[in-house]
Amino acid sequence: DAVARTGAVAAIVRDAVLTQPVWDMHTHLYPPTFGTPSQSAGQPSDPNGLLLWGVDELLTYHYLVAETFRVVPNAELSYATFWSMSKQDQADHIWRQLFLERSPVSEACRGVLTTLAALGLDPGERDLGRYRRWFAEQEPSKHIDRVMELSGVSRITMTNAVFDDNERLRWLENPQVAADSRFAGVLRFDPLVRDWPAAAAMLSRWGYPATESLDEPSVQNARRFLNDWIDRVSAIYCAVSLPPTFRYESPEDGTYSSRVLSEVVLPVLAERGLPFAMMIGSQLQVNPSLRDAGDMVGMSDVNSVTRLANDFPDNRFFCTMLARENQHALAVAARKFGNLMVFGCWWFLNNPSLVDEITRMRVELLGLSFIPQHSDARVLEQLVYKWSHSRQIIADVLIDKYADIERTGWRVSEKEIRRDVRLLFEGNFSRFVEAPAP
Amino acid sequence: DAVARTGAVAAIVRDAVLTQPVWDMHTHLYPPTFGTPSQSAGQPSDPNGLLLWGVDELLTYHYLVAETFRVVPNAELSYATFWSMSKQDQADHIWRQLFLERSPVSEACRGVLTTLAALGLDPGERDLGRYRRWFAEQEPSKHIDRVMELSGVSRITMTNAVFDDNERLRWLENPQVAADSRFAGVLRFDPLVRDWPAAAAMLSRWGYPATESLDEPSVQNARRFLNDWIDRVSAIYCAVSLPPTFRYESPEDGTYSSRVLSEVVLPVLAERGLPFAMMIGSQLQVNPSLRDAGDMVGMSDVNSVTRLANDFPDNRFFCTMLARENQHALAVAARKFGNLMVFGCWWFLNNPSLVDEITRMRVELLGLSFIPQHSDARVLEQLVYKWSHSRQIIADVLIDKYADIERTGWRVSEKEIRRDVRLLFEGNFSRFVEAPAP
Amino acid sequence: DAVARTGAVAAIVRDAVLTQPVWDMHTHLYPPTFGTPSQSAGQPSDPNGLLLWGVDELLTYHYLVAETFRVVPNAELSYATFWSMSKQDQADHIWRQLFLERSPVSEACRGVLTTLAALGLDPGERDLGRYRRWFAEQEPSKHIDRVMELSGVSRITMTNAVFDDNERLRWLENPQVAADSRFAGVLRFDPLVRDWPAAAAMLSRWGYPATESLDEPSVQNARRFLNDWIDRVSAIYCAVSLPPTFRYESPEDGTYSSRVLSEVVLPVLAERGLPFAMMIGSQLQVNPSLRDAGDMVGMSDVNSVTRLANDFPDNRFFCTMLARENQHALAVAARKFGNLMVFGCWWFLNNPSLVDEITRMRVELLGLSFIPQHSDARVLEQLVYKWSHSRQIIADVLIDKYADIERTGWRVSEKEIRRDVRLLFEGNFSRFVEAPAP
Ligand SMILES: [Mg+2]
Ligand SMILES: [Zn+2]
Ligand SMILES: [Zn+2]
Ligand SMILES: [Zn+2]
Repeated sequence: DAVARTGAVAAIVRDAVLTQPVWDMHTHLYPPTFGTPSQSAGQPSDPNGLLLWGVDELLTYHYLVAETFRVVPNAELSYATFWSMSKQDQADHIWRQLFLERSPVSEACRGVLTTLAALGLDPGERDLGRYRRWFAEQEPSKHIDRVMELSGVSRITMTNAVFDDNERLRWLENPQVAADSRFAGVLRFDPLVRDWPAAAAMLSRWGYPATESLDEPSVQNARRFLNDWIDRVSAIYCAVSLPPTFRYESPEDGTYSSRVLSEVVLPVLAERGLPFAMMIGSQLQVNPSLRDAGDMVGMSDVNSVTRLANDFPDNRFFCTMLARENQHALAVAARKFGNLMVFGCWWFLNNPSLVDEITRMRVELLGLSFIPQHSDARVLEQLVYKWSHSRQIIADVLIDKYADIERTGWRVSEKEIRRDVRLLFEGNFSRFVEAPAP
Repeated sequence: DAVARTGAVAAIVRDAVLTQPVWDMHTHLYPPTFGTPSQSAGQPSDPNGLLLWGVDELLTYHYLVAETFRVVPNAELSYATFWSMSKQDQADHIWRQLFLERSPVSEACRGVLTTLAALGLDPGERDLGRYRRWFAEQEPSKHIDRVMELSGVSRITMTNAVFDDNERLRWLENPQVAADSRFAGVLRFDPLVRDWPAAAAMLSRWGYPATESLDEPSVQNARRFLNDWIDRVSAIYCAVSLPPTFRYESPEDGTYSSRVLSEVVLPVLAERGLPFAMMIGSQLQVNPSLRDAGDMVGMSDVNSVTRLANDFPDNRFFCTMLARENQHALAVAARKFGNLMVFGCWWFLNNPSLVDEITRMRVELLGLSFIPQHSDARVLEQLVYKWSHSRQIIADVLIDKYADIERTGWRVSEKEIRRDVRLLFEGNFSRFVEAPAP
Repeated sequence: DAVARTGAVAAIVRDAVLTQPVWDMHTHLYPPTFGTPSQSAGQPSDPNGLLLWGVDELLTYHYLVAETFRVVPNAELSYATFWSMSKQDQADHIWRQLFLERSPVSEACRGVLTTLAALGLDPGERDLGRYRRWFAEQEPSKHIDRVMELSGVSRITMTNAVFDDNERLRWLENPQVAADSRFAGVLRFDPLVRDWPAAAAMLSRWGYPATESLDEPSVQNARRFLNDWIDRVSAIYCAVSLPPTFRYESPEDGTYSSRVLSEVVLPVLAERGLPFAMMIGSQLQVNPSLRDAGDMVGMSDVNSVTRLANDFPDNRFFCTMLARENQHALAVAARKFGNLMVFGCWWFLNNPSLVDEITRMRVELLGLSFIPQHSDARVLEQLVYKWSHSRQIIADVLIDKYADIERTGWRVSEKEIRRDVRLLFEGNFSRFVEAPAP
């Protein structure tokens, strides 16, 4: 009967969503060859290493640092004191304040528990020492395999910030640094679009002479710079993070960013057949004392995105925005442009109530033609909770939507459900980057 | 006991909401006398006819065209090619892409299935040919009766665009063109408010001499134009669609739109006792290649609406806005002005998750003093799904609200529930237009 | 098993939330010593008295006046006529229109029913005369005890508007006017920040000479004024309501409000160790004919708040905003500043669907480090419904959140749940004002 049918469909959807491998399109994770600051079995610690993992990194995630400074504010434990503490002492402080002195109900706290549990550790023990000992015994590369297995992530997309000295030098020193098939590269170059004069100075230093005026030789050198680095990181797309104030009116609107986009970035990407990802709405460092935790959200201009999609039909654009109040218009914008792919519930939006409303709205407006989530993981094991929590919500939404159409007499087969879920978790992305799913 | 009581009330509410005839206050539907491009039994096809109906129209609805260009983008099947295809070929393409290649979970896709099922066709068959044969056998006027019966629509309000040549000439050629009691007329004149200079030129051509300067004779002639056309279409209200950038500061704010409103439109409507409807927030043609599907949403200025309601207390205003982010303030604005009636969940808002949040918010802020929905149907049979889907959500909201007040000991009778539902579906509207419910 | 465990936790949460005494941080209530216009046993009526209570005040609450003018608009019963009616006649009119002619499903209507029921009156009787007789028999001070008991309010925070003549004179005439331990004082001085020139003139008249130029003597006198009044009302914090247009760029941004804040208000409050509360987003009197019901909502600037929190690290800020569209960014802002405490769901946001979404979002982003609600009660007995309705929703949210973390194996004890709930209802506030919970 109808109830049994609904239950059967729901069970298939849940299974499909929970088991479907996902190509995680945006993380801040790296292979062990980029070094890791954590203590581990089998790899010496590199204090500036880029791969973060382990329980102390999970606990000192900047989301939790921010929450801790609410309950023990600067007036009680100063920013300076906190930052001078060892990572383990910081983690102890956060654990005590956010998990023991009050219940860990925020999404970021809950994420730590979900992660520990999935790794076979028991959050009910509340035994930080034991968790630490377990992590110290892991060998990074095998641990990555295990985390990918547990989170159902088939490939991890990096964010390769070419203007970051620490990262850039690692690429230059070791051309094989990223020779790890579990990871895919993304060239990220915020200063190029956000601050051309500063970027031009750096390009010049790096052998790509460029002037503030962005004259023709500068354009050519900047393009060569992009091409070289796209090759070096084998980038599957390029990306920038843009502030809420970002505006694009036209190539001739008189801003550096519009000129850089129209003369340098978009022509190169069109030629290379690579999408351009824009993450818009993060306002940097409203509280510098919080460091990585000090950025804020702001409303962005969706019209700038539709104008880019319209003016550059030979480019493909990924776009996510940070403000809740941009989500409806951004989803509508995607209805207007086939070369615009909305993705993810970013950062302050990656909370159950918001993921639910955004995903529901997107399915209603866009069907299956979007990318529901990325993890944005900065610490390896966050893959586990970010995907576990999101999968539950995505499954709930799909169950409702299949139930709605089944009520009309339409019948959806298991094969169709798995096909649909594959589109959301892998197919839409791999098709947009024109690369086969892993 | 309490549970049984809650269940009994819920059953009454559901029955009341599902069976209550609705006066649909905004559609783009017409009587068969305006011609129909579809093949049918008993009426010759008119390629420029205004009444759209049938499965090919349902499938080529611009909502679905937009969604199709996301999955088969311009790069794969160009806009030009698509628009050159026959309606049936377009429909085949859309059916294949949105219903067969992936599941039809978007709200617009689901709507097609709901409609087919209600008409007695089986969506489970997935047999487009069969659906087509059934529609070809229908006689338009009888089909309208049937669709109205199935959707519970007691009267269909048209949108009579006087600046549209195709439509205007039909009115001029045949004064009886709308002599169909199932339909009510609404005079729509966007150019008058949005682009006075262009409108003035047309008015002059049509025998109502008007100048760009909007001098006194222009005012008088424009008023006469409105009066003549209000009479011709027996308009029960007048309407415009306005862009997100619409602003009204005062009659003397220096804009054409404020002058046209304060000197022409609002005085005529006050004299005639007719409401003025403003649909605000649609940004035209951000992607012209998509034609009807190329419009976008934008945030509008609710303060302009409250100023109009305040400055023109002798006028009555209907208002709906397209941006989700305007809905809360618009509902609050309605709390401030008894001559402001909010209505409907428009276009990109007509999706279950948004209809639910908007309806809930409105009941909480406004009680029963608003108009929860209009269909905006462009294709006759869309009446079926737009009302079916909305009725379910409205019933859910009302059930919760009655349950809340019954928990205090308040007892709501069946008669009261039916009275309340009638207000929402018919009474508030008929009272605002000062016309008896059909 | 898991289901039983979830049920047991839910039962504890519900009990904890329903029984936890709350320190209501913002109301417009007063002790009987401020006079009451209502008829009662044991206290003569004072037509300008500040303590509102009783069924006629509940029914003529400005929320309900606004709703009534929607269903019987000015054109049918003019504003002038309504305002000239006696309070009892107004209440009769509202009762008839909003409770009898249509069902009382709005949140404000429902609130009256919840309140009557909690007081032992039966809403099912619909007998206004009987309700009136019951209220007339109450003695104000004992009635306050009873209402506090029923609503679980342990202390009522007043709003002591020093620029309101009626209130100011009562303080000056009777230094003991507020000697009632059930009430705590808050100094409210909107004109000081919103309209310095007007405020300066009044300060000068009151013995604190101040000039429009805000010269050094003016600063000193304004500070003295604040200090004197903080002492007089034993203020536990100071507060202003600000319009949506409020902006703070820097102390030198050239606005009076930024100068008054940085030179007068914030230095005094830092010295006194008192928080500063900003309620932002109310646009005054868009419809003056509605009097208290004539204010509107508008989007505010969250960045102004983060700049204040950043520029004045020695101050503590309470903040609530009126626009739904500010809630996400405001919660994120609180993540950035430990000296910024978000509180409450204000006015047009105090509706179940919005309280639910805001509370959920805050818990996800902030854990337990915020103040979920204040009553804003203007009529004594509103404490009952405002807290009853909010407690139900807060409990629902917490139940979900505890269930989420328990699913990982984390175990939350009854003691921990009660500790967490105490933080939300009392602890976070009392710690922020550095005053012990009652
Ligand atoms: Mg919601
Ligand atoms: Zn990121
Ligand atoms: Zn329309
Ligand atoms: Zn208040």
